[in-house]
Amino acid sequence: MKRVLVVSGPNLDMLGVREPEVYGRTTLGDIEAELTGLAGELGIEVSFFQSNHEGALIDRIHAAAGDADGIVINPGAFTHYSYALRDALSSVDLPAVEVHLSNIHAREDFRAMSVTAAACVGLVCGLGADSYALGLRAIADRLAKEVS
Amino acid sequence: MKRVLVVSGPNLDMLGVREPEVYGRTTLGDIEAELTGLAGELGIEVSFFQSNHEGALIDRIHAAAGDADGIVINPGAFTHYSYALRDALSSVDLPAVEVHLSNIHAREDFRAMSVTAAACVGLVCGLGADSYALGLRAIADRLAKEVS
Amino acid sequence: MKRVLVVSGPNLDMLGVREPEVYGRTTLGDIEAELTGLAGELGIEVSFFQSNHEGALIDRIHAAAGDADGIVINPGAFTHYSYALRDALSSVDLPAVEVHLSNIHAREDFRAMSVTAAACVGLVCGLGADSYALGLRAIADRLAKEVS
Amino acid sequence: MKRVLVVSGPNLDMLGVREPEVYGRTTLGDIEAELTGLAGELGIEVSFFQSNHEGALIDRIHAAAGDADGIVINPGAFTHYSYALRDALSSVDLPAVEVHLSNIHAREDFRAMSVTAAACVGLVCGLGADSYALGLRAIADRLAKEVS
Amino acid sequence: MKRVLVVSGPNLDMLGVREPEVYGRTTLGDIEAELTGLAGELGIEVSFFQSNHEGALIDRIHAAAGDADGIVINPGAFTHYSYALRDALSSVDLPAVEVHLSNIHAREDFRAMSVTAAACVGLVCGLGADSYALGLRAIADRLAKEVS
Amino acid sequence: MKRVLVVSGPNLDMLGVREPEVYGRTTLGDIEAELTGLAGELGIEVSFFQSNHEGALIDRIHAAAGDADGIVINPGAFTHYSYALRDALSSVDLPAVEVHLSNIHAREDFRAMSVTAAACVGLVCGLGADSYALGLRAIADRLAKEVS
Amino acid sequence: MKRVLVVSGPNLDMLGVREPEVYGRTTLGDIEAELTGLAGELGIEVSFFQSNHEGALIDRIHAAAGDADGIVINPGAFTHYSYALRDALSSVDLPAVEVHLSNIHAREDFRAMSVTAAACVGLVCGLGADSYALGLRAIADRLAKEVS
Amino acid sequence: MKRVLVVSGPNLDMLGVREPEVYGRTTLGDIEAELTGLAGELGIEVSFFQSNHEGALIDRIHAAAGDADGIVINPGAFTHYSYALRDALSSVDLPAVEVHLSNIHAREDFRAMSVTAAACVGLVCGLGADSYALGLRAIADRLAKEVS
Amino acid sequence: MKRVLVVSGPNLDMLGVREPEVYGRTTLGDIEAELTGLAGELGIEVSFFQSNHEGALIDRIHAAAGDADGIVINPGAFTHYSYALRDALSSVDLPAVEVHLSNIHAREDFRAMSVTAAACVGLVCGLGADSYALGLRAIADRLAKEVS
Amino acid sequence: MKRVLVVSGPNLDMLGVREPEVYGRTTLGDIEAELTGLAGELGIEVSFFQSNHEGALIDRIHAAAGDADGIVINPGAFTHYSYALRDALSSVDLPAVEVHLSNIHAREDFRAMSVTAAACVGLVCGLGADSYALGLRAIADRLAKEVS
Amino acid sequence: MKRVLVVSGPNLDMLGVREPEVYGRTTLGDIEAELTGLAGELGIEVSFFQSNHEGALIDRIHAAAGDADGIVINPGAFTHYSYALRDALSSVDLPAVEVHLSNIHAREDFRAMSVTAAACVGLVCGLGADSYALGLRAIADRLAKEVS
Amino acid sequence: MKRVLVVSGPNLDMLGVREPEVYGRTTLGDIEAELTGLAGELGIEVSFFQSNHEGALIDRIHAAAGDADGIVINPGAFTHYSYALRDALSSVDLPAVEVHLSNIHAREDFRAMSVTAAACVGLVCGLGADSYALGLRAIADRLAKEVS
Repeated sequence: MKRVLVVSGPNLDMLGVREPEVYGRTTLGDIEAELTGLAGELGIEVSFFQSNHEGALIDRIHAAAGDADGIVINPGAFTHYSYALRDALSSVDLPAVEVHLSNIHAREDFRAMSVTAAACVGLVCGLGADSYALGLRAIADRLAKEVS
Repeated sequence: MKRVLVVSGPNLDMLGVREPEVYGRTTLGDIEAELTGLAGELGIEVSFFQSNHEGALIDRIHAAAGDADGIVINPGAFTHYSYALRDALSSVDLPAVEVHLSNIHAREDFRAMSVTAAACVGLVCGLGADSYALGLRAIADRLAKEVS
Repeated sequence: MKRVLVVSGPNLDMLGVREPEVYGRTTLGDIEAELTGLAGELGIEVSFFQSNHEGALIDRIHAAAGDADGIVINPGAFTHYSYALRDALSSVDLPAVEVHLSNIHAREDFRAMSVTAAACVGLVCGLGADSYALGLRAIADRLAKEVS
Repeated sequence: MKRVLVVSGPNLDMLGVREPEVYGRTTLGDIEAELTGLAGELGIEVSFFQSNHEGALIDRIHAAAGDADGIVINPGAFTHYSYALRDALSSVDLPAVEVHLSNIHAREDFRAMSVTAAACVGLVCGLGADSYALGLRAIADRLAKEVS
Repeated sequence: MKRVLVVSGPNLDMLGVREPEVYGRTTLGDIEAELTGLAGELGIEVSFFQSNHEGALIDRIHAAAGDADGIVINPGAFTHYSYALRDALSSVDLPAVEVHLSNIHAREDFRAMSVTAAACVGLVCGLGADSYALGLRAIADRLAKEVS
Repeated sequence: MKRVLVVSGPNLDMLGVREPEVYGRTTLGDIEAELTGLAGELGIEVSFFQSNHEGALIDRIHAAAGDADGIVINPGAFTHYSYALRDALSSVDLPAVEVHLSNIHAREDFRAMSVTAAACVGLVCGLGADSYALGLRAIADRLAKEVS
Repeated sequence: MKRVLVVSGPNLDMLGVREPEVYGRTTLGDIEAELTGLAGELGIEVSFFQSNHEGALIDRIHAAAGDADGIVINPGAFTHYSYALRDALSSVDLPAVEVHLSNIHAREDFRAMSVTAAACVGLVCGLGADSYALGLRAIADRLAKEVS
Repeated sequence: MKRVLVVSGPNLDMLGVREPEVYGRTTLGDIEAELTGLAGELGIEVSFFQSNHEGALIDRIHAAAGDADGIVINPGAFTHYSYALRDALSSVDLPAVEVHLSNIHAREDFRAMSVTAAACVGLVCGLGADSYALGLRAIADRLAKEVS
Repeated sequence: MKRVLVVSGPNLDMLGVREPEVYGRTTLGDIEAELTGLAGELGIEVSFFQSNHEGALIDRIHAAAGDADGIVINPGAFTHYSYALRDALSSVDLPAVEVHLSNIHAREDFRAMSVTAAACVGLVCGLGADSYALGLRAIADRLAKEVS
Repeated sequence: MKRVLVVSGPNLDMLGVREPEVYGRTTLGDIEAELTGLAGELGIEVSFFQSNHEGALIDRIHAAAGDADGIVINPGAFTHYSYALRDALSSVDLPAVEVHLSNIHAREDFRAMSVTAAACVGLVCGLGADSYALGLRAIADRLAKEVS
Repeated sequence: MKRVLVVSGPNLDMLGVREPEVYGRTTLGDIEAELTGLAGELGIEVSFFQSNHEGALIDRIHAAAGDADGIVINPGAFTHYSYALRDALSSVDLPAVEVHLSNIHAREDFRAMSVTAAACVGLVCGLGADSYALGLRAIADRLAKEVS
Repeated sequence: MKRVLVVSGPNLDMLGVREPEVYGRTTLGDIEAELTGLAGELGIEVSFFQSNHEGALIDRIHAAAGDADGIVINPGAFTHYSYALRDALSSVDLPAVEVHLSNIHAREDFRAMSVTAAACVGLVCGLGADSYALGLRAIADRLAKEVS
């Protein structure tokens, strides 16, 4: 059974925690629960990792070379400057899909540039929690094709 | 039943037609057939439009205000300069998802900028024909939520 | 009697059509009716052309060399990138005034640059339908002076 | 009766004064006389102010909050760098139209950028003395609508 | 016998038509007649297409995959922004030479950049109608070498 | 007793005067009164100057060389382009602190750059009237240290 | 009693430690001691955190949502590129003031840009240890006003 | 006898006044005295004007159209942004030479750009008081040639 | 009989010399031989000059004013920065055509800019040795027309 | 005996570990072993530190102030944006040499800029493992000279 | 007696030689003759060097360290890119004044930047042959002051 | 025995010659003597070339194809603009290492960019004469590996 690691970067632990009456009550835990359900449907295993530490994200991606077949990653704000994270993704031989909850092309100018996406096979953004789910589907499809 | 219009821009009619031994044999027709199947699963109606003419794409998007509930659009190279297409998307009150077969962040510099994405709710790229399928799912999910 | 061609570019056909409760009910037809009245006052003939097709706009401007003495043009979003439209305006020996409903200096950065205005004698923007009316007056005045 | 203040910035006092055989004999006084006539037609009062001093222009605009209902302003070269003038226009609650005798989009690169226009409702340029007249009409129309 | 398609973009239909006393009397028809003669000398077939519509140019280039062995193209102002035309040239497996009547390096800044040339084998500019003739020779030479 | 000159630039005379129901009722006079009180606490003398004239501000700063020991300055919009004001601050041998009511890093792009701050010892912004008070404290502290 | 968290970023632990004969002997500990005294005067509680780890700073800011009412932050060099830190500040509902010991407008070009300041209410820089003290006063004043 | 106006811009009144032990004791008065002597040698009349007010400089330049045959101008920091001063120089039909005491190419980046020099016949910089003297000689030579 | 000078810049002496199995065996000598043959056909005289020294190229171009009627020049890498070579071409009253073996628009970014082309009548690139031949034809045609 | 700390940044722990058949089998451990041997030859002590955490690298560099006489550092991708690492190197009074395995001037544009090198005495790049060895020699030489 | 070397760069040998009816008949020889006369008046020795070879100019400047006390240099187009010439001027301990016949601020954009001027004490431009004469005076004055 | 050519560009002949009390007494000759000694240790032959002429450097590099196995090059200021030198290095099939005495990342902005380094295998800078020695070692190592 194929294994997919879902990585979430800085500040995503705050999702739905602060001021739920304003920003909604969906937490990263809720998203991960939904992804676990979807993984069951898709016949894959899924594991999760979140950190606000760039180095911890890099360490985890390196480890994925030994315990995963693909990666879904929301690099948070590291998207816009972490060439180290980009190199980490390039250093492992795993397909990755970058996801963002919001549409990075419809916010501040600096958010339109992703330095990490070039090390991924593709990108999904702007669809809220669905961005994660579609990213997981994309990796699952890709891994399924590799098998056949 | 919700209706989704799938719009494809310039040069996508050439997909899989020229030199299939090199670029693969998947044509835009194949993608549309796959999307029709997926639409059945998702319980939505889907229709298709392709043109190499910016004006024809704009006309069709305007018409969508009367015959569709959502849009999946691959603007092709218009992505990078057609502010007219962007305004067309803004002028109709329909959610749209931008899709690209290739990863626009891993090619020439000019392809990393999308002037149309800001008028869409989200973007999916780099996943080949799956980009279209995921875009369709995203719109279907969104429309389903509107209903409930 | 001097003849003025009023050209409107992409998406202006949507003016006042969609969501009138939000954006107002003034349509391009209303503006053209008002201009027809004003033309009567000014003692000039006025004709109209709208298209979402850059090529159609260029064709019409070329034809104006044979059936008009001046041009009022709202290039819509082509303002910001259509060097072809700019060259079309330069290729005919007619005075043109560029008009915009909104203030192009008070919106997104890309809208502040007009590549077409350099091929016109002047520009009027930000005054809603009045931008068209003032543009028509400007051309009428200019043509009147040529006569005398 | 509505009152409109017409403000002219640096070097406009030299208009038509130096080398009339080359640049024409229309002076700022001539323009102001024409505008006075037009104001009569439009049923509004018009007053004038010209200065080469940025600070004097700002002072006068501030005072306009007490003695005018709208502003027509030709900021001259201050157009391209006087953020102080821009803030002055923003600090009073009066509609303003920016006017230029020449087409700012058809001269040196630096003239295409207006930092003051963002604080105005609109802009008229390239039409010589008519730019002022059309600007006055625009403000008159706007004020008339406010009344009704 | 090798076939070459000669494509001319926006505003080239106005060549020599307007104000011949100023710009000369050479029309696009004259150029095409000259090229027909040259084609005879070179032992190749030549056909022509001109349009002000970007989409029509793309459609014609696609069709060239079936009825031509090489392309000479003057993209007009599309040279400076039509990434769609660039992709069209890349999508067909035909050698193309870009030509311009004027020297794009000796005019406005924006004309020095060609986004389409990267999809061509070479470029000829600044030599008036001779640019077309030399472009045709270049393609003929290249096709001749392929044969041998 | 140490003397501090508090200089306020263009448009600050409008503070709290226009539309108090919208922007608040704190005027520059109120701020100056508060600073006078604070000066008493801090055991320093304070004097005030406001002008919309760049030249008047420069003249006053020059004069400060003879009648002040330090400067608090809110250059208003001159912050973003007045190299003359910067040179004026450099030309006198007095410590200056630049203050702004609003956060210059959270507004339009052009406001994030201060050309005058490089001629000051420090900068305080974003804290409303408190920016002035803190700037005064900073200068007072610095002057106190010079004494000891 | 209101609680303020004072956060110091990378390399501030080296302050006054290395080569005191050159750079002075004030350490971060000295600054914190001074702030503790000032907090007493101001009737607020103050706590401190320093780290060279971006992730640790983000974690601490998140925690502040539960144990602080305001933040004073010196992001050190993260000021110039850590969009993750900026998002962390935005993710908690606490007023923050950014402080710098040196004048960021009077050093290398890259130091003049703060990407974090936009997520703060204001900024104090260039006043050495006083920058911290003034930042603390600013937050204290703001919190005092919230109470009343 | 030819008359030359020598104009000095902002902060030049401070020359040699403040801290003469550091910056030298040459004042603007000293320079003007030297120029008066040189004017005698050259057989021309010379008059002087200094102001820190951009508007006053413009007014004086305008007046020069009536009382001078040439201009030597040190625009001070206005050199780098005062398009109004540039236009003032262009508005009068007098040859002008721009002078600077320091070498504008060997200081901060912003000082290397002169927006006023384009409205002058030439520029002399970096030679201290000699820059003025050489500028006066240049104008004198030029005026002498006009006579002959 | 018209005389054309063919100038080749730096590194063109290495053409076909090094690693012929990789880059082909066509040397600059071969190209010059081909051009000599073509010159015979065209009824013109042709001479050649190659140097890796910018100064030698300038000297030779100056001399061409006395011994040639036109110039074909491949400036090699000087194309991208030698304003001196550009001025040399402008200093002689001879038509010049710039040629490049490779397509300067399809290589590194810096190669797309030609600073020398603005001093030539036209440019041919991307066609290998044919670029030279077509450049020679272009000059021959032009000279032939001058005669008639 | 002089002590040199060799610091390696993010992703260098992956060197030679993944896909040795493609990227070679040299690991960071191998490089460190080679450097230990070289240190023996040079009569210096060498210690090593690698981390993917920016903060850990900064902490280690701070500690080097107490246990090392010089630094060899390969900052990995932090080279291109970590101003914090740059400040860390500046905060300790030790000579440092920056090294890179690959040639940073022959890869993507962003890699050509080093923000950390300005805080080092020199830089060695492009020579694979030899870059480290040469960097160690450079520091050893420098330390030897300090002794004498 | 002080010795001044007058250096002229590329293309200045063509001055007045080509098309005297258009560009005037003043040659570099004429200028040098005038400077010789002026040198006599000023009591200095003057020698001349012109070359189109950057390397020859550098060699001559190096030699000037042994046979001259000051330099007047017109670097021609090398002004805009020859950092090697700039370094040559810096490598000798002689004051230099840069001169240009034309006003570099009133021509193409690229001519406004001088990379060599930063290695000179000052610059004179726009005054034709007088630029040389004034440059010589400037150096003579400076050398005279050194003596005293 | 492997042969290495050591090339030094403009102004390096001045090293240690002028003002030795200020800049040190190490001449290029001293460096070359040291390299000769090192070459003996390394078992390679070394030859030297210095010129201030870009063309001479290119000629010498071309010749190296016949008499050297590797190159150490200090391009001096040509580093920053000589694309011709870059192409020369690319045109010969020899490994080259670029060296600089000073740290190009710690000086003026323009010195941080090397246009020649991309044609070399690596770069060493900032280590004074050691930069040459380390560059020679690097080439020697590389050549030794080729042999084995």
